[in-house]
Amino acid sequence: MRVLILNGPNLNLLGTREPDTYGTATLVDLEHELRAYFPNIQFRFEQSNHEGRLIDVLHEERGADGIVLNAAAYTHTSIALRDAIAAIEAPVIEVHLSNVHARESFRHHSMIAPVCRGVIAGLGMTGYRLATEAIQALQQSE
Amino acid sequence: MRVLILNGPNLNLLGTREPDTYGTATLVDLEHELRAYFPNIQFRFEQSNHEGRLIDVLHEERGADGIVLNAAAYTHTSIALRDAIAAIEAPVIEVHLSNVHARESFRHHSMIAPVCRGVIAGLGMTGYRLATEAIQALQQSE
Amino acid sequence: MRVLILNGPNLNLLGTREPDTYGTATLVDLEHELRAYFPNIQFRFEQSNHEGRLIDVLHEERGADGIVLNAAAYTHTSIALRDAIAAIEAPVIEVHLSNVHARESFRHHSMIAPVCRGVIAGLGMTGYRLATEAIQALQQSE
Amino acid sequence: MRVLILNGPNLNLLGTREPDTYGTATLVDLEHELRAYFPNIQFRFEQSNHEGRLIDVLHEERGADGIVLNAAAYTHTSIALRDAIAAIEAPVIEVHLSNVHARESFRHHSMIAPVCRGVIAGLGMTGYRLATEAIQALQQSE
Amino acid sequence: MRVLILNGPNLNLLGTREPDTYGTATLVDLEHELRAYFPNIQFRFEQSNHEGRLIDVLHEERGADGIVLNAAAYTHTSIALRDAIAAIEAPVIEVHLSNVHARESFRHHSMIAPVCRGVIAGLGMTGYRLATEAIQALQQSE
Amino acid sequence: MRVLILNGPNLNLLGTREPDTYGTATLVDLEHELRAYFPNIQFRFEQSNHEGRLIDVLHEERGADGIVLNAAAYTHTSIALRDAIAAIEAPVIEVHLSNVHARESFRHHSMIAPVCRGVIAGLGMTGYRLATEAIQALQQSE
Amino acid sequence: MRVLILNGPNLNLLGTREPDTYGTATLVDLEHELRAYFPNIQFRFEQSNHEGRLIDVLHEERGADGIVLNAAAYTHTSIALRDAIAAIEAPVIEVHLSNVHARESFRHHSMIAPVCRGVIAGLGMTGYRLATEAIQALQQSE
Amino acid sequence: MRVLILNGPNLNLLGTREPDTYGTATLVDLEHELRAYFPNIQFRFEQSNHEGRLIDVLHEERGADGIVLNAAAYTHTSIALRDAIAAIEAPVIEVHLSNVHARESFRHHSMIAPVCRGVIAGLGMTGYRLATEAIQALQQSE
Amino acid sequence: MRVLILNGPNLNLLGTREPDTYGTATLVDLEHELRAYFPNIQFRFEQSNHEGRLIDVLHEERGADGIVLNAAAYTHTSIALRDAIAAIEAPVIEVHLSNVHARESFRHHSMIAPVCRGVIAGLGMTGYRLATEAIQALQQSE
Amino acid sequence: MRVLILNGPNLNLLGTREPDTYGTATLVDLEHELRAYFPNIQFRFEQSNHEGRLIDVLHEERGADGIVLNAAAYTHTSIALRDAIAAIEAPVIEVHLSNVHARESFRHHSMIAPVCRGVIAGLGMTGYRLATEAIQALQQSE
Amino acid sequence: MRVLILNGPNLNLLGTREPDTYGTATLVDLEHELRAYFPNIQFRFEQSNHEGRLIDVLHEERGADGIVLNAAAYTHTSIALRDAIAAIEAPVIEVHLSNVHARESFRHHSMIAPVCRGVIAGLGMTGYRLATEAIQALQQSE
Amino acid sequence: MRVLILNGPNLNLLGTREPDTYGTATLVDLEHELRAYFPNIQFRFEQSNHEGRLIDVLHEERGADGIVLNAAAYTHTSIALRDAIAAIEAPVIEVHLSNVHARESFRHHSMIAPVCRGVIAGLGMTGYRLATEAIQALQQSE
Repeated sequence: MRVLILNGPNLNLLGTREPDTYGTATLVDLEHELRAYFPNIQFRFEQSNHEGRLIDVLHEERGADGIVLNAAAYTHTSIALRDAIAAIEAPVIEVHLSNVHARESFRHHSMIAPVCRGVIAGLGMTGYRLATEAIQALQQSE
Repeated sequence: MRVLILNGPNLNLLGTREPDTYGTATLVDLEHELRAYFPNIQFRFEQSNHEGRLIDVLHEERGADGIVLNAAAYTHTSIALRDAIAAIEAPVIEVHLSNVHARESFRHHSMIAPVCRGVIAGLGMTGYRLATEAIQALQQSE
Repeated sequence: MRVLILNGPNLNLLGTREPDTYGTATLVDLEHELRAYFPNIQFRFEQSNHEGRLIDVLHEERGADGIVLNAAAYTHTSIALRDAIAAIEAPVIEVHLSNVHARESFRHHSMIAPVCRGVIAGLGMTGYRLATEAIQALQQSE
Repeated sequence: MRVLILNGPNLNLLGTREPDTYGTATLVDLEHELRAYFPNIQFRFEQSNHEGRLIDVLHEERGADGIVLNAAAYTHTSIALRDAIAAIEAPVIEVHLSNVHARESFRHHSMIAPVCRGVIAGLGMTGYRLATEAIQALQQSE
Repeated sequence: MRVLILNGPNLNLLGTREPDTYGTATLVDLEHELRAYFPNIQFRFEQSNHEGRLIDVLHEERGADGIVLNAAAYTHTSIALRDAIAAIEAPVIEVHLSNVHARESFRHHSMIAPVCRGVIAGLGMTGYRLATEAIQALQQSE
Repeated sequence: MRVLILNGPNLNLLGTREPDTYGTATLVDLEHELRAYFPNIQFRFEQSNHEGRLIDVLHEERGADGIVLNAAAYTHTSIALRDAIAAIEAPVIEVHLSNVHARESFRHHSMIAPVCRGVIAGLGMTGYRLATEAIQALQQSE
Repeated sequence: MRVLILNGPNLNLLGTREPDTYGTATLVDLEHELRAYFPNIQFRFEQSNHEGRLIDVLHEERGADGIVLNAAAYTHTSIALRDAIAAIEAPVIEVHLSNVHARESFRHHSMIAPVCRGVIAGLGMTGYRLATEAIQALQQSE
Repeated sequence: MRVLILNGPNLNLLGTREPDTYGTATLVDLEHELRAYFPNIQFRFEQSNHEGRLIDVLHEERGADGIVLNAAAYTHTSIALRDAIAAIEAPVIEVHLSNVHARESFRHHSMIAPVCRGVIAGLGMTGYRLATEAIQALQQSE
Repeated sequence: MRVLILNGPNLNLLGTREPDTYGTATLVDLEHELRAYFPNIQFRFEQSNHEGRLIDVLHEERGADGIVLNAAAYTHTSIALRDAIAAIEAPVIEVHLSNVHARESFRHHSMIAPVCRGVIAGLGMTGYRLATEAIQALQQSE
Repeated sequence: MRVLILNGPNLNLLGTREPDTYGTATLVDLEHELRAYFPNIQFRFEQSNHEGRLIDVLHEERGADGIVLNAAAYTHTSIALRDAIAAIEAPVIEVHLSNVHARESFRHHSMIAPVCRGVIAGLGMTGYRLATEAIQALQQSE
Repeated sequence: MRVLILNGPNLNLLGTREPDTYGTATLVDLEHELRAYFPNIQFRFEQSNHEGRLIDVLHEERGADGIVLNAAAYTHTSIALRDAIAAIEAPVIEVHLSNVHARESFRHHSMIAPVCRGVIAGLGMTGYRLATEAIQALQQSE
Repeated sequence: MRVLILNGPNLNLLGTREPDTYGTATLVDLEHELRAYFPNIQFRFEQSNHEGRLIDVLHEERGADGIVLNAAAYTHTSIALRDAIAAIEAPVIEVHLSNVHARESFRHHSMIAPVCRGVIAGLGMTGYRLATEAIQALQQSE
């Protein structure tokens, strides 16, 4: 089973940026945690600040069993990401570290949610684990 | 550990109502599944079509370790539920069976999300399990 | 043939409340009139000020041949009622005593109309009779 | 007793246009049905695709006992029709074949409803019959 | 000097329609009054309920010295009339009998005002006389 | 003189819920304070989290000399409460503990204020006393 | 007969400010022209850049036979001027030199028009003369 | 104890302007009534139609024990008044004679309410007395 | 192959109206050009300022192989034209001479585009030729 | 003659992505077809998922005789692309494969259309050919 | 070289009002600082809480070499100030002490910015110095 | 002292693009001017049309003493840039060459301004110099 963990803009700063809001764990910590928790899943981890790069990677992994996508700021504005998700077969779970609904109003709307299978928000790093479990459940139900 | 699973209006029809959208499992199936999966958790299951009753139950369980709330239609309009959640200590996870963002626009806004800890949507019955896991994770991190 | 006549909030005051707008006939008068006009129809009459109670009754009568629903104020705000109507098989005709389009703008939008079969407004008590006739016509055309 | 049945743009295509939505009955069928059902009413039937012509006919029949008006597309935009209805004495009942509230959002608003006596929508050809009955009831109550 | 007095939908009913709002004078009275007041102006008077006819007449009189236009209900919605006014050389003065700003909000916006030379509203029949004077003043200043 | 003090959803938690915002006094304290301050007034105190129950009580007390209503969250959404207030004779004074205009924007609009006699907000428990005084003043001026 | 000609902010610059738009005539020219044209009318001319001063003058002249008011920029925002006009008996005619509807959208709305008798816009200095004539006509019709 | 009673535009006409809406009492009556009711309070009474003057007075009385402010029309538009209230220490109670929520929609929003301690509306002259009592209560609780 | 070229309001003035924007070619020039360019196509050319007439012609040509429609001002407001296009089988290509998106905002929305096969704008008379080519291409692909 | 064919995000998937909507032809097919159809035009074909890359290419080809741009999802949001088009001399024709006006509402607005020469939508691959013809026609008319 | 430094409502309180936000420096400090920094510039310093007074001063200094204007609250609402700035020749630089874009949304829009030469916000007292430098630079480039 | 001058999309065309609006100076000229004016500051100059690249550079220079950012078109839409600015310590001054408030309405809103220290707009190349001075002033005050 192959899963892509794709992180968007500014998430490379995780652990150093606003630790009160986002915690002190880094993307490397996340990778270690997920690999340990799901030893049988073949993960690919990518992060980019470039919208176009995120689209390229989604295209490359269109045959994956599932994709966990934290598109960060692009969540709210990118029709291009939405089209990329709609164009590929792999089921995508949208994840957010913080509870976006408790923040500025421009973060309440997700342009990509309607073409994702599900959304998990506000549960910090745990959200990535739950999303991966959801992908497992999707597989078993098909 | 004590967890309330609280379901709102029309969810009593689960399994019979629009099975294409909501599946054939009933609330009783959900209860069995969760009790089996989390044998060490003491669950209370409640469902009501009455907004006021949902508020009453939230008040009663204000000391619970966590609450999984599918407020269904009241999600989008009820300031009273929002105030009830804000008024109690127990962490609340908002759950939706379907991907509300892919449905009518009046279902895109959640009045209660800003006062919940997290939101899980679009993952069917699996969402309740993931929400319960999230409550466990919240406990461990405190 | 079985028909539910379901009236919502404040309609219990009919005949005494603002008689210039709503006339002097009461819900009891309405019941007598309809039973006399349609002797072969088995009617159930219910009124409640509680949104949850209206949903409960809709669920109970989901197998009726038709439902005439004057949801009054809940017409304009209740997604829960809308979901209840969408979840049951019985055809529902929405009725309003007054011409809601000639009143305050928040009464111009009906949250439930899109899931009802038809709408009759502005024709006073006559509207209930016409709605019942419409249910008869629906039956004959099926 | 004199009643005008006035149909607006594209209703001349009734029976041939989108029969799944509008049925196979034509305006001629409607005329036969109404004349048979109400043998004592003196009907005038008119249809036009021209907004100005509809206004002219409303002016001509300003002394009628009642007018059943399906203004079709002009329902949603025509202030001129609204002013014509407001300017004449004859009571006007607005009728729609389909449930306009279940269609595109620009069909949810009626510019003429506030100056009509009542509105009947979603009940197909039956709506014209019910509207005529409503006119009879209005006469008797005056 | 040649001036067109062009009246739009429902103004043929002037004097009989809602006399409390619009007064008891008719379009014929208006014609007599203007011809008497401005004996040296060659007037043409036209009224139509048809938007297309109003456009046709504007085209015919494109070489007039001035046009007094009461487009009535079409004022608020007709881009076609606006384009017709913009396409001709004759200066157009928009006139309204009633104070449209004190009526329903959909009458507050004029689609044609931006391409007219001036607007006179709320002064009853006197408005036509003042508009004709304004055309005389425009002529003298050129 | 008979006065109803009617409190809406979540106000049963007063004194324990967010004491920084709402203070430590409870509804029982309020009752004692008002009975002591106005010994000649016959009070009825009711609280409910159910919208329908609040309507029922308003109907029951329609003959009271005055009603002090803190509808809490329902203030902002309930057309049914508005209709109930409009349907009864007793003058209603709307009260809010906190300054709703300094909170979330969805609390700035009151659906019931237009049918109340007056509004008092932001003055804590004192607001109930002032509202009762206002009812006394209304009585004396009639 | 007594008429107040009241001009608002920046109109003291008339003749020097943007002559392409507003012409080269000054307020003094306007005064001379109106006094010459209406020798039997007793005029008062006032201009102020202060909203409060305009209100004071309206109060002082509340017994005038008519008021011609060019409130300039305050037209679009001043509820206080609106209340002043509504509070006095003298009929007020709103005048604008330019065609405000052909300018920025924030000039399309007049806060004071609903409480004025009429509006004249886009006709330059001629507008003041026509407004004075309208006041004469109003007097004769009463 | 020192209290400022500050009234805004057009309130100098109180008693003469629209007595049906505002009653026949004048500002002088108000002053007498308040001085009689609160003999131990040192009052200052001011009224102005000038927004700037209201700000100047608020600055002068920034050390008062409380301010009762009826900003009338400026309530709805004046950010400058809001800033003045926020800049001073004295607690301000916003008062309106009429129920502004039952009037035009542009009177439903208060620009100053968020920086006032409380709001009292719809209770006529009584509102000033209640506001003064509220200031007394604020003092005692500090 | 049979093609209708249908032009809407004010396009009869083409060549004389605002030649800077619309060029100097007339509808007759257009007809000559298209007949010469597509000798094997049987064209019908119609222009009308009447919305109703445009609908009538669309109905008459419902069996054509294709329709090139420049609805001009009616593009932006006519639901009746939209319904006419949806009701007929012939594919319709919407054409505009100017780039409507670079003009007033009320020209940015097309009410008819959603029911047309395609849209061509901003390319002047060339647009009609390209639209006819598109109809040819549609034929070949079926 | 030199023409750039520039395709935006996700168009690299053409032929494989949602073939029901977009057909089975690929960008390579498009290139072959255009080179064959216009043997005398020197084409450059570029596709990128990166907004910045599209801007870079537009800058590089600013001296081309014409540019056919399908900006896909960036059409609706990219002010940067709009500025790039406005900054270069080459005329740009906006092309869309599908009828964007018949899809989600966020696809109805084009941020770049106002600075393009023309727009062609809904005509599939044929649209690119027609756009190239339009560029030829533009050249000939200059 | 002559420069006007014009400050609007509540800025007289600078140094005492909310020092955390606005600092402890007063307008007198500002005057000393600017006179010391630009010994060759002839400054005039004015502050007023009256909108009309600010307009009067702008008129008086219409021949200045430059104006630094902090219109404070009037920035966001005053069309009259906007017209005054547009009517005079002197270039105006808009200055704000705080970053208005990080405050309430009603402070994000400036009514006067479109007619100013430039805007400087968020840089405290330094903003006045930079604005004066900008005026010097404007002079040198002309 | 280290300062980053970061320019966004299309600014590489400076000096050649629309010189009437943007002047003839290039980015190279800007660099020379700033290095000459501030010999003691260590500058880094970057320009990119890629949103992701701008974010990368902001991350690289997060320890700079100050950043002058002209994000051009991305100013109005990029939440990702906003998050990048919020995530770094270096103070950022937003600069625009032209007065964005005098241009299209979509340029009036800045998505990044709320997280910048200050904003300078409309002052051409001088704006960069003033922003650098502001950074110096910020340093001295800390």
